[in-house]
Amino acid sequence: MFTFQECQDIINKAFKNIDLKKEPVNLYQPIEYILSMEGKRIRPALVLMACNLFSDNIEQAIFPAIGLEIFHNFTLVHDDIMDNSPIRRNQTTIHKKWNNNIAILSGDAMCIIAYEYLLKGVHENKIKILNEFVKTAIQVCEGQQYDMDFEDINDVTIDEYINMIRLKTSVLLASCLRIGAIIGDASENDSEYLYQYGKDIGIAFQLQDDLLDVFADIKKFGKKIGNDIVTKKKTFLLIKAFELANESDYKRLKFIIENKKLDNQTKIEEVKAIYEKLGIQDITSNKISEYINSANNYLNKVSVDQEKKYELIKFSKMLLNRKF
Amino acid sequence: MFTFQECQDIINKAFKNIDLKKEPVNLYQPIEYILSMEGKRIRPALVLMACNLFSDNIEQAIFPAIGLEIFHNFTLVHDDIMDNSPIRRNQTTIHKKWNNNIAILSGDAMCIIAYEYLLKGVHENKIKILNEFVKTAIQVCEGQQYDMDFEDINDVTIDEYINMIRLKTSVLLASCLRIGAIIGDASENDSEYLYQYGKDIGIAFQLQDDLLDVFADIKKFGKKIGNDIVTKKKTFLLIKAFELANESDYKRLKFIIENKKLDNQTKIEEVKAIYEKLGIQDITSNKISEYINSANNYLNKVSVDQEKKYELIKFSKMLLNRKF
Repeated sequence: MFTFQECQDIINKAFKNIDLKKEPVNLYQPIEYILSMEGKRIRPALVLMACNLFSDNIEQAIFPAIGLEIFHNFTLVHDDIMDNSPIRRNQTTIHKKWNNNIAILSGDAMCIIAYEYLLKGVHENKIKILNEFVKTAIQVCEGQQYDMDFEDINDVTIDEYINMIRLKTSVLLASCLRIGAIIGDASENDSEYLYQYGKDIGIAFQLQDDLLDVFADIKKFGKKIGNDIVTKKKTFLLIKAFELANESDYKRLKFIIENKKLDNQTKIEEVKAIYEKLGIQDITSNKISEYINSANNYLNKVSVDQEKKYELIKFSKMLLNRKF
Repeated sequence: MFTFQECQDIINKAFKNIDLKKEPVNLYQPIEYILSMEGKRIRPALVLMACNLFSDNIEQAIFPAIGLEIFHNFTLVHDDIMDNSPIRRNQTTIHKKWNNNIAILSGDAMCIIAYEYLLKGVHENKIKILNEFVKTAIQVCEGQQYDMDFEDINDVTIDEYINMIRLKTSVLLASCLRIGAIIGDASENDSEYLYQYGKDIGIAFQLQDDLLDVFADIKKFGKKIGNDIVTKKKTFLLIKAFELANESDYKRLKFIIENKKLDNQTKIEEVKAIYEKLGIQDITSNKISEYINSANNYLNKVSVDQEKKYELIKFSKMLLNRKF
């Protein structure tokens, strides 16, 4: 079985050999720029790993895997415009380095090039793969819209939040596994179990991201602590805290979050204190465990030798054992 | 044979039955908004008409035709953001009615829904159709990028300009004809002839648009006269005039075009006078005739009875006999 690292290497090598057109320069240079930033390549690696569960021939999965990674990068380019983010993977975002119009259009082209790669190669289940991809791609747009909508809505529920992260983040991971499985000629059931596995892992991953934002060990965590609090982001933690708070805690939490005069450090400490009082860290950890358990149950059902699943399990553990 | 009008009606009826999802509202309402504006539906009608040349069963072409129209509308939504246009088809553009982020994202979703419709239906040549579509869709992005690039370049040549309009406007019309032909089970040659026909008609159409902007009968022409001159747009006419002008005319033309103090009416009259001196109207008309002749030569080569081509010829005449 190929390890995650080996799959990553295969994908990075394949990306180096991608022969993008050169002109118009302002269309293709931004695409080359973002695709040459070596990201973690999680999605395409998942395609190869899922295929590998059922087939030794993972070569056939490389083009679709690249298509899915290009699609993911397209969503990053457009999300960065929408969020007005200046930095991505420690480098200037396309809309800041060039401009909004160039970022819109090169993103559009990437969305189309993604299809080009999904269409490449000789796999006989191409139409099935494309249908799966289209369904997922639309869901990702829906997730991004809900995420933007939530900025202006006060009473987002936990269910609505989970649904949003499922659409925005989780279904693409899940779909990568399903597409890999289809390429490897897995049964309908096995493809579905892997999809569900990926979906639950994806949600667990996002919840963990929410948790790490507040409770991570600052020395081990790459990002700034408390950024979600400062930016008033409606995370699992905040929504849960509002749900559990008594009247006075509710008012206090709202006051701190909305207060523009409070300095960031005080804000973070005050919110963290309320989280601690309400046991938000444990509640979130338990929720994450629930999703991981559910994911593992799905993976157990996949009808290949348990030892073949080892690399995938190792990978998910790595993904979820981050920087506390 | 179905007339253009009949094909238009079939498409408009099909659009009325499209069952878009409803939520998130901010994603799907803008899509519904633009798709419910009854445009001319030229592209999907061309798909049906091309199919009809080879097959009586045009039903099978409806879903792909809708996909191509949705793709076209996606490009309009994003182009309108990039050009900051407030009005489209006499209605407020999506980015003005909602906002830029919503226009970016609902455009993205439309680009994906376009694929969904190209994948729908039972046609056996689906992969061929999708490959054709992907190739064209990327070219449309390239055309839009060249168009934006040309705003900042002084020495655009006629060849570069023709290449830009070929990519931005013409290949999609051509591709609609090829896709219709493929669905109707036409030969490779016939599909290619129809593609070339559409490509030349498309270029002729755009050149005529350039010409009408300056020399149209104001009573019959829908748009404001001289808008391209006021906005300094590099059209066939302007590029040709710069190419043919002697030193003093060149300087004068440059001075007028760049002059921010001159009122619009004077500007238009002065530029028009230079165009008349240089014979730009005739030169452009001749160029249009060249493309129409070339288009007709290609159409002649298509191996179906000449009388079957009558509706397509009638349609192109209608398209090109506009508002002088």
